[in-house]
Order: sequence, then C-alpha cells, then structure tokens
Amino acid sequence: MQKIRLTIWNEFRHERENPEIAKIYPEGIHGALARGLAADDLEIRLAALDDPDHGLSDEVIASTDVLIWWGHCAHGEVRDDIVEKIHTRVLEGMGLIVLHSGHFSKIFRRVTGCSCSLKWREAAERERLWNIAPCHPITREIGEYFEIPHEEMYGERFDIPTDGEILFISHFEGGNVFRSGVTFERGYGKIFYFQPGHESYPVYYQQEILQIIGNAVRWARPVFFRQMSAPQTPALDKITSVNTAPVTGILQNIDGTAK
Amino acid sequence: MQKIRLTIWNEFRHERENPEIAKIYPEGIHGALARGLAADDLEIRLAALDDPDHGLSDEVIASTDVLIWWGHCAHGEVRDDIVEKIHTRVLEGMGLIVLHSGHFSKIFRRVTGCSCSLKWREAAERERLWNIAPCHPITREIGEYFEIPHEEMYGERFDIPTDGEILFISHFEGGNVFRSGVTFERGYGKIFYFQPGHESYPVYYQQEILQIIGNAVRWARPVFFRQMSAPQTPALDKITSVNTAPVTGILQNIDGTAK
Amino acid sequence: MQKIRLTIWNEFRHERENPEIAKIYPEGIHGALARGLAADDLEIRLAALDDPDHGLSDEVIASTDVLIWWGHCAHGEVRDDIVEKIHTRVLEGMGLIVLHSGHFSKIFRRVTGCSCSLKWREAAERERLWNIAPCHPITREIGEYFEIPHEEMYGERFDIPTDGEILFISHFEGGNVFRSGVTFERGYGKIFYFQPGHESYPVYYQQEILQIIGNAVRWARPVFFRQMSAPQTPALDKITSVNTAPVTGILQNIDGTAK
Amino acid sequence: MQKIRLTIWNEFRHERENPEIAKIYPEGIHGALARGLAADDLEIRLAALDDPDHGLSDEVIASTDVLIWWGHCAHGEVRDDIVEKIHTRVLEGMGLIVLHSGHFSKIFRRVTGCSCSLKWREAAERERLWNIAPCHPITREIGEYFEIPHEEMYGERFDIPTDGEILFISHFEGGNVFRSGVTFERGYGKIFYFQPGHESYPVYYQQEILQIIGNAVRWARPVFFRQMSAPQTPALDKITSVNTAPVTGILQNIDGTAK
Repeated sequence: MQKIRLTIWNEFRHERENPEIAKIYPEGIHGALARGLAADDLEIRLAALDDPDHGLSDEVIASTDVLIWWGHCAHGEVRDDIVEKIHTRVLEGMGLIVLHSGHFSKIFRRVTGCSCSLKWREAAERERLWNIAPCHPITREIGEYFEIPHEEMYGERFDIPTDGEILFISHFEGGNVFRSGVTFERGYGKIFYFQPGHESYPVYYQQEILQIIGNAVRWARPVFFRQMSAPQTPALDKITSVNTAPVTGILQNIDGTAK
Repeated sequence: MQKIRLTIWNEFRHERENPEIAKIYPEGIHGALARGLAADDLEIRLAALDDPDHGLSDEVIASTDVLIWWGHCAHGEVRDDIVEKIHTRVLEGMGLIVLHSGHFSKIFRRVTGCSCSLKWREAAERERLWNIAPCHPITREIGEYFEIPHEEMYGERFDIPTDGEILFISHFEGGNVFRSGVTFERGYGKIFYFQPGHESYPVYYQQEILQIIGNAVRWARPVFFRQMSAPQTPALDKITSVNTAPVTGILQNIDGTAK
Repeated sequence: MQKIRLTIWNEFRHERENPEIAKIYPEGIHGALARGLAADDLEIRLAALDDPDHGLSDEVIASTDVLIWWGHCAHGEVRDDIVEKIHTRVLEGMGLIVLHSGHFSKIFRRVTGCSCSLKWREAAERERLWNIAPCHPITREIGEYFEIPHEEMYGERFDIPTDGEILFISHFEGGNVFRSGVTFERGYGKIFYFQPGHESYPVYYQQEILQIIGNAVRWARPVFFRQMSAPQTPALDKITSVNTAPVTGILQNIDGTAK
Repeated sequence: MQKIRLTIWNEFRHERENPEIAKIYPEGIHGALARGLAADDLEIRLAALDDPDHGLSDEVIASTDVLIWWGHCAHGEVRDDIVEKIHTRVLEGMGLIVLHSGHFSKIFRRVTGCSCSLKWREAAERERLWNIAPCHPITREIGEYFEIPHEEMYGERFDIPTDGEILFISHFEGGNVFRSGVTFERGYGKIFYFQPGHESYPVYYQQEILQIIGNAVRWARPVFFRQMSAPQTPALDKITSVNTAPVTGILQNIDGTAK
C-alpha cells in the first residue's frame, strides 16, 4: 500500500512571538505533531502561514492525501484563493483534519456552511472526553474516556451541521459540555474536527491525542480522487412525453389566460 | 401573528432575452411565483440580479424572513459581499428556499459546503416526484406522488451533505433518479432545496409546485433572529485543577527531554 | 383546533410502596405531571401498570394522540401484546414521550432497536442541561441551559440510534455527560426521550421540566393517523422488459453451466 | 487476519416447493450465495428455517461474525427466542445483512423499530440501481449505476429510520423509486439492507450483486464483541450538592403546599 502523503499546516505565529508558547512547542505545533505522528506509512510535510503561498502551492495541494489544519489568530490572513483550492481538493477526495481553534478557519466554515461559533474560556481547566463511538476507526485504542489536565474550554452551543457523526462529548471542569470530535463528508472527502490543542498547554504531546489524530489520518485517506463535474447525460430509457403538449398550451390550461 | 416578509429573488435574464421563455413567464419567474404564492399571511417583495445591489440592499436583507432564490446562467455575477450578507442572515435565522438551477448558486454552495454537482439533460421528459416524508410540513396536501409533464432532468449523484432530510425522490422518464426536495439547517436558519423549475417549462404555474413552495415558506419562517457570537464565558463550577502541574513539567514527562 | 388527547402512563409502584417517594409524589408521578401540564388544549387521562390492561385498553390506545411513559422497576411486567399495540399505534401516528428510566422500557427498546444501555449513579448530584437546539419547538422558552439541583446521573455511552436529533446534552457534577433530550421518528409517529425524572427527587415539579414536556406534547401531536400497509401497486409506466430474456438463459450466461 | 465467520440463513421453502424456483436455485438461495461469495477470507456456514433451531443454535450465533438473512413467506414461523438472541448478538457486534423480502422479517423490524412497509409489484421489470455513495466500502468496484434485467419492484415510501445511510436509489421501469441499499448501526453492530433478490429471478448470480454483498460482509465484520451493560458507576469528580436542600423543602418551594 502506498504511503499516505500528510501535510501538517500551522499558523505558526504564537510559537515565534510568545516565549511561553515557544517553550512548549519549540519546533511549532506542526513540528510537534510531525514527531508525534511519525510512522512508516506516512510521508509528512510541514507548511505554515508565512511560507510562500502559505506552503500550499498547487503542487503541494495536488500531492496531499490528508491535510491537518491548526490556525488561531490569523484566520483572516489566509488567502481566499488558496482556501478555494483546498476546498476543491477536499471535494475531490482529500482528507481534512481541523484542530482546535481551526473551528473558525475559513476552510472549516466553508465546508460546514455554518458560523462554527461556540463559547470559550481560558482557565487551564480539566477536560474529560467521553468516547461515544467506540467502534469508529478514529477511536481505536481509546477507552471509555480520557482526560486532558489543562485545556481551554470550548462549550456548546457549537454551530455545526447535524450530519456530523459525534465521536466525543467533553465534560469541562468549569461546567460546560462540547461535541469535541465530529466527522463530516463533503464531496468525496472526509473531514474530522477535533477540539483539543490550545497553544498554551502541551496537549499535542499527550498519547491519546496523538493516537486519535493518527487514527483520523488513516480514516481520512482518500478512497480515490475524482473531479466534480455536472455532466450533460443522455437518456438511458426512451422518452415519449416530448412535445405531446406544447408549452403555451399547458400554460393556458393552468393559468386560464389567453396568450 | 405577523406577516411573513418574503423576498423572491430571480436572475431574470432568460425572460428578458429569450422570447420563448418570455412567453412562458412574461412577468418573470419571480413575478409568476409572487402571483402563485400570494396570500394574506405573506408580504411579498421582488428582487432581481440587475436591480441596484441585486435588489438586496442591507435594508431588504434585514427585513426579509424568507428568501426564495432562482438563478441559472449568471451565478458568477452575484456579488460576493452580498452573498456573504445573505449567508450571515441565514445563520441568524432567515429562511432560504433554493429552486432548481440555484443548486449551483454561490449561496447554496456556501451553506452546503459541497460542489452541488449533478447530472442533467434537457429533453422535456416527465418527472414523477415521490413523497417520502408524508408528515413533514412541506409536503402538506401532497399525495404519494405527483408528476410534472415536462421538466429538465437532474440526476444523481447529487453532491450535498447527508444531513439533508429527504422529502422527495424523483423518477425521470429517461432513467434517472434524484433527491428533488431536501431540507437543511444552518445556524438558526432553515433551508429547502427544491429541484423543479426549468425556465423552458411552465412548472411554476403547477398547483402542487406552488403548494410545496408555499408550505416551505411557512416552514422556513424564523423562530427568532439572533446574531452568532463566540462569547468568552465565566466558569459555572469551581475549577481546581489550575496550576496543579506546570506546563513544562508535563512536557518533560511526555517527551522525555530536559528543558 | 381539537384538543390533544394525552395519556400519562406511570408504573406507579414506588409511590405506593416507598413512603419517602410517596411524600414527593403523593398522587403518583402521573398525577403530578397531569397537574403540571394541565392546559386548555389538552385532554388528559391517567393510566398505570396495575390498572386492568395497564389502563391501556384498545379504546384508550385508539383515542390517544400522545402517550407519556414512566416506568422503572417493572418493565418486565408490561404485557407484550400491549407493547405491540402501542408500537403499532406509534407507527400509525401517535406521539410517544419516554421519560427517565423508561429508556429501558419495552416500548423504547422496540422503537429504537437498541439496548438503550447507559451508565448510572444515584448520588443526588446537580445536573446541568445544555440546550443545543434553540430553534426546536421542544426547547421553546428554555434558555442556554438550566439546572436540576439533584438528579440521578445517566451517563454515556447511551446506546441509541444516531438518527436521534439531540436537543440537550447534560453535564453532571460527578463528571459524566449525557444526551438527555433526543427525538426520533418511526412510521408516522414522533418520539421524544427526556432523561430527567428520578422518583427520589421532585423533578416533575420544576418549571423548566414541565415546560419541556409540555412543548414535547404539542410537538408530538399526530399530523394524521394512517395504517401502515404494503400494497401491491400497478405499474405507472409501460414495462417492456418482461420476457425478453428467459430466466434459465440468464442463469446459463452467468454461471456457465448447462441446465 | 482471522477469517470472517459468515452464516447465510435462508427460509429455503420456495426452492423446495416450487419447481420453477428450484430450477433457478437448485441448491437454495443460501447455496447460491455461498458459491458466489466463496473466498479465502471467509468461513461460510449455511442455515435454514427448517433446520433444528433454524440452524441457529447458541453455538452458531456465538461463532458468527456476519449473518446474511433471506426470508419471505414464513417470517411468522421464525421463533421469537431465536430472534431475540440474534438481536442481542447484533447489539454486541455481529454484522447483519438483510436481503430483499427480509425487510419484513422479525429481525429487521426489530433493529429498525419501524413497520418497514413498502409498495411492491411482481412484473419482471428492469431495475436500475444508482450508486449515491461512491466512496463507501460497500460500493467498491461498482460504477455510477447498474441494472438488474428482471426484478420485483419495491417502491417508496419505505418506512425505515432516517439514520440509514443511503447507498443506492433504484429506478424501476414501471415508474417507482426505492432506497435499495441502506446501512444502519445498532449497539456495536452494523446492518445493511439490500433490496435485490426476488426468488423468481436469478439475481444472486449477477456479478454486481455478489460484489456488493461481498463488500458488505467485509464492512459489517465486527470491530469487537462486547456485552451491553448498564453499570452503576462511581463519581469521577467530587459531588458537593448532596443534601444541601432536603427533598421535601424543594417540594414545598415549588408547589407551594405544606406537607
């Protein structure tokens, strides 16, 4: 089986601008994820907002099977034309994994069609994620629940479409709940939103988190790539109703006026 | 009860440019719909692509409860900033009814996040719509099925999200099938896609079609309008886990390196 | 508009056998609900397990628009033939509201096809119900969340079908989460499962609880009653493929053996 | 990887009682399916209604990974206790593939909770199945559509839950449509309903049909087997609200009466 070509995209600003964050993620969140996910069946590339074309040239997009997305404070700086290309590629089959504050990214709002709004609080509180889809490939080797010692709170109501299959529901120490792991399909592509991963806490070093993201990469692998089209298509069966009634005749019959 | 403020938007090009179409819809598709839907509980306005701001000024959008959308050959001419405002208003509660070739409109692609591609054929063939949701408000007074004598074929695979509740499945004489009536919810707004209505056939004079669109207008009426927000929110319960473990300590435990 | 004929069914054992429970519900849970829900548009009847035919004679079932169900320790004593009749009537259009420990009732397991298993704990802990469907008729007049001071914990994983529309997700003080309000449709009937209501706590006197159950009664009102059938149905279109290929001929072509 | 233990259950009456059917399926429908599905990764057993315990002893059920079900005229003769055991095993993880007239089997009605009613007609007409889920494992190697030259018509409205993922929609020559391939999940088990397979036509020799059923067997393979339980579970977090307000006190505050 061919390797999965995984591109990990990171806004990569907090880690360069904030020394506290830099201590947690000295190589960036994308770097930490790349180390944590490294495996024989994956071919991993990194990309960041401030790279040329955000590191997402046409060649990179065309050769990516699964794209991981982490963004936070600079969603607005992501170029619309590149978002458009990513969206098209997702519809053609590319997998997309959106992490944490990526809920407000252009690409996630675009694939969901929703505002993706939610409640939030940064209080270093404990989050407990309940696994409600124990047979799903993304929850493989995850038990009934697991905890993150300190995490930013994301709380309901989370404005997402209801076709999302809910894999995790989180219980926050401060009193909120959240659908923290949800899958979608758009076109031929699979999408996974996963809430954990605030930049101030070392969440992406935690074993369960890496297990889940790794599972999601394999799950989101394209079955195939195929361009979307709207083909004119010949009739398969004989059409006999053509011209049996002229259009104007029908119009007269229905609205009763003479033309 | 207050009247429903309905705005019927039409591209309104075919009817002005093609004499054959003009014979069918002398007042435009929007005009025909306005006549067919007129009722005491509706306050109807018309809007068209070539009106200033496409007839969709901020005031019009802000005072519309339900928006009907018919577009075909000029989707690309619809201004992005206006699409953005419509999208925001749908998320805030405005109902949206997308007709026929509006499947490829910017607004429908935006609320679905899909390509909305499909197969098509213009052969004046008979379409039979099977009602598979007989209890739904939109199918009120519609029997098990009804037929349109001549309609453009739209065929599967229709690329839409799976959270759509399917109300109608169509059987086309030429051999295709189609999910021809589907509802969605996005934010606080309700959306109905309804396939019939090619400009070459007098579909919008047919009684069942007007009944269904009229039902949909009442169904899509906003429960309320509310702006989407992402509020920072205080804890409801006491948080005790703060600072119990320093971030760097956790980091060291997990990746094994000394900081 | 005709009144909604509401039948409130209660196992009615705890209240007669346990003095502590009797103090909370001196007239039974069904009696308390009847008082709390009383309104001009409702015609309310009570029924209990130990009534003849469980209070659910053919006449009662046939004249019930919406049935509320509370059961706990005696699910096994409910007669299968009566469950069968209730199920049939739900499929024909009767609304069904299943409360709390009714998750394990024969009728709820039958309409869901699932085990309906869950975790539980009786520790008088606080439950906070988050409203995640603010536009749904059942959450009318309910804010973002509300609390029950003392409730039995029901926790995930709750084994129910995924077609349930989730209205509430609960946060329990002891650390669990639960999909505590979920709707389903089966046949022509609407079903609402609502988790609150342990017999040891006066939950059914709380205003929000009564509001939600009352909303659900109106929501679950039948659109119509119609018997399910599997009719042989004549062809609508001409069938030309009959006898064009003899069955044995096709068989020979496919499996290659001579008959 | 261990072999998939597949049990193919057939009512096996038509083939023994009707010489015309016997010509098509001399070894029974289950025999034909066993030959058609035979593969290295499958361990296939046959079972029939008139075998002792319908061929479904506790040992057989306990050692079956995926169960295929074909029944028609004798649904009522299937023992309830065995249906109960099958249902329990599905909830624990066993895959279930229900074919054609099995839509009215006890087990399918039980897992769906619906009447599973539909329209039907036996006119040897052509059926065209449109593949609307091209990325799903069950449609692997199936193109946009395929045809069955002669098949019994099954038509909408098909009364099934809406959580079914729709894989195929059929176009019948005589004018009907049908959701002809639908998946469900119940407990830890996966379920696939597939409409083709009337006993009078050699449908189970057709390559696409065997491909789809074979795909479904692999898809429905259990991820694990696990008994459903409803465990009492200790609190994970400290509960402080206990006894802060006595039950009777709350009661008095809410209903205003003195006890």
